[in-house]
Amino acid sequence: MKKLINSSGQIRQQLLAGLTYTYDDTLTWHTKTGIVTKKMISKNKVVLISGGGCGHEPAHVGYIGENMLDCAVMGAIFEPPASSEILQAIEETYNGQGTLLIIKNFEKDLASFLEAERLAKAKGLAVSHVIVDDDCSIESGSFKKRRRGVAGTVFVHKILGAAASQGKSLDELQALGEQLIPLIKTLGVAFSPASPIGIIPQQYELAEDEMYFGIGIHGEPGYRIETMQSSERIAIELVNKLKQQYSKKDLIQAAVLVNGLGNIPLLELGVFMNDVQQLMDIEDIQVVYKRMGNFLTAYNTNGLSLTLLAIKDDKWLDYLRVPTDAFAWR
Amino acid sequence: MKKLINSSGQIRQQLLAGLTYTYDDTLTWHTKTGIVTKKMISKNKVVLISGGGCGHEPAHVGYIGENMLDCAVMGAIFEPPASSEILQAIEETYNGQGTLLIIKNFEKDLASFLEAERLAKAKGLAVSHVIVDDDCSIESGSFKKRRRGVAGTVFVHKILGAAASQGKSLDELQALGEQLIPLIKTLGVAFSPASPIGIIPQQYELAEDEMYFGIGIHGEPGYRIETMQSSERIAIELVNKLKQQYSKKDLIQAAVLVNGLGNIPLLELGVFMNDVQQLMDIEDIQVVYKRMGNFLTAYNTNGLSLTLLAIKDDKWLDYLRVPTDAFAWR
Repeated sequence: MKKLINSSGQIRQQLLAGLTYTYDDTLTWHTKTGIVTKKMISKNKVVLISGGGCGHEPAHVGYIGENMLDCAVMGAIFEPPASSEILQAIEETYNGQGTLLIIKNFEKDLASFLEAERLAKAKGLAVSHVIVDDDCSIESGSFKKRRRGVAGTVFVHKILGAAASQGKSLDELQALGEQLIPLIKTLGVAFSPASPIGIIPQQYELAEDEMYFGIGIHGEPGYRIETMQSSERIAIELVNKLKQQYSKKDLIQAAVLVNGLGNIPLLELGVFMNDVQQLMDIEDIQVVYKRMGNFLTAYNTNGLSLTLLAIKDDKWLDYLRVPTDAFAWR
Repeated sequence: MKKLINSSGQIRQQLLAGLTYTYDDTLTWHTKTGIVTKKMISKNKVVLISGGGCGHEPAHVGYIGENMLDCAVMGAIFEPPASSEILQAIEETYNGQGTLLIIKNFEKDLASFLEAERLAKAKGLAVSHVIVDDDCSIESGSFKKRRRGVAGTVFVHKILGAAASQGKSLDELQALGEQLIPLIKTLGVAFSPASPIGIIPQQYELAEDEMYFGIGIHGEPGYRIETMQSSERIAIELVNKLKQQYSKKDLIQAAVLVNGLGNIPLLELGVFMNDVQQLMDIEDIQVVYKRMGNFLTAYNTNGLSLTLLAIKDDKWLDYLRVPTDAFAWR
C-alpha cells in the first residue's frame, strides 16, 4: 500500500500541524508536542483527556470540543504518548475541578496514562481514569477475550463529555464510565491488513478473496479468516456475535456505530448500515441513536467495525444527542 | 480490491436506504427512486437540485440541508440518473420560486439533466442550470483541457445554497454560479485506480510505486504517471498547476479544499494539508477558508484532489461560512 507522507519520523508533527491548521477555530496545538486542546477550556467542569497513538484519525483530536474532550495527547504512529507529555497536558489544562483520563485498553497505553496519573497525584492534582475495553473479539484458537479499547471509545468521549459539561463531579464521571463501558461492545472485520510504514511489522496477510473477523486497530490478527462474503452475511456475523454479549433484558434500546477503519468507501458503509438496520428490526432491538463514518480508524486498513451500546438510562441518550463542535462528531 | 456490497445491481437502492436511515432526522428518500430530499423544503426560496452517479459518496446526498441543496438525484454507480427521475424530482420539489440544477460537466450528466430541464420547462416550470467544470487536468499527450466537474462542485452547492436561502432569485443564482465557477480549479492524483465492480472497465493500471496526476472521479486516466513521491512534492505539483490557472491579481484570497477520493487515511490528508499550508504561505496566497476530508470521492480509489476557489467577493466567504446541517458539511 502506498503512503502519502514525507518521512515516517515526521508524521505526528506534520499531521497535528495539518489538523490544527484546518480546525484553528476550535483547536490549539502545543507545538512540537502531541498535545492538542480546546481553544477555551471551561473553568467550571471536570477536564476530560484522552489520546493514544496516531494512525486512528480522526481519533482523538476530532473529539475535542463542547460536550466532548478538552484535550487529546497523541503519540507516534500506533505508539501511545510518553507519560511526561500526558503529565504536561494534565498540568496545563488543570482547572481545579479534577481531570478524567479516558484510556483505551492496551498495555502500553495503560502504562503511559497511569504513570502520568500517578505523577500528577503526587503533585496534589485530582486525577482519575476509566479504561475502555469494548472489543469482544476472542483470540483465534482460544477463548481468551481481547477486550481492547476500540471504536466504542467515541461513545465514552461523548457521554462523559456531555455529563461533565452538565456539572458531574470527577467521582460521578468515573462511576458513570464504569456503568457505561460494560454495555459497549465492538467487533471488527478487515478486508486488507494495516501496514504502518515499517513501525510495526505487518501482522497478517490476506489473499485477494479473504477477510478476517475480529481484527484489532493496530493490525492485530482476528479470530477467523473466511472467504469474502456479502455485506449482509458480514452484518449477520457481527450482529449475532455482539448480541450474544448481552443479556436479553439489557438489549432493548441500542445506539449503533458503523465505523470505517479508514480505507473503505462511504458507499460500502451505507450498504452495510442498511443490512444492520434490517437485522436490528428482526432482532427487535430498537435503534435510538446511530452514526456511520470513519471515526476510529486503523492506518491503511480496509475494513469496518460495528459497535452497540445498550441504552440502560435515557440520560445516556440525552448525552449522546447534545450537540458538539468537535470536528469529527458534529 | 475487495468490495463490501451485496449485488452490484442493488447498490443504489441499498446505499440510499442506509444513508437516509442514518440521517432520517434531515433526509427523506423517495423509496425505489434515486431521489433524496430535505425533510422540509422551504416555500420561499429557489429550489437547488444536484446529483449524478453513485460512487462519489458523501456527494451529493451529504450536501442536502439548510443553506445547501434541497434535493439530490442519484443514478446507478458512475451513471447519472434518468431524465425522467430528475423531472420527477423537479416536479415534486417545485414551490413556484424556480429550480436551479447544479450539473457536473460530464457528457452523460449533461444529457440527463438538460433533457429534464427541457421537459420541465415544457410543462411551464421555471428551471435553469449551472455547469461545474473545475477540473483543470489536461489530456495526456495533448493540450486539451478536461474541464470535468469534480470536488469544487461542493463549493458551488454551499455558496449557491446559502445565497438561495438569503432570497436570491433564479436568475441571480445562475449569474452568481457563472461568476463563481471559473474561479474554482481542481486537480487530482491517484495512488490506486478506481475499480467499480465490472460496471466500467478499469481504465488504467499503476505499479506498486507509481502514482497518476490529473485522474478523473470515474477512474479516468490522468496526464502523467510518476514514481510515488513525498506529500510535499505532490503538493508542489498540484499547487503550481492550480496557481497557473489564475491571473496573479485574482488569487489573493482563496478557499482551499483538500478532498480524499475515499480510500485514503485522514492521517495522510492531514500531512498533505500541512504541506499545502506552507506552499500557500510561500506563494503569499491568503487562505480564508479551508476544508479537509472525503467530500467527493471516486469509488475504491486511493488518492486526493486539491481545489482552490479565488475569493473575489467577500459575500462568497459569508456564504461559505453560514452553518448548514447537511451531514457531510457540518
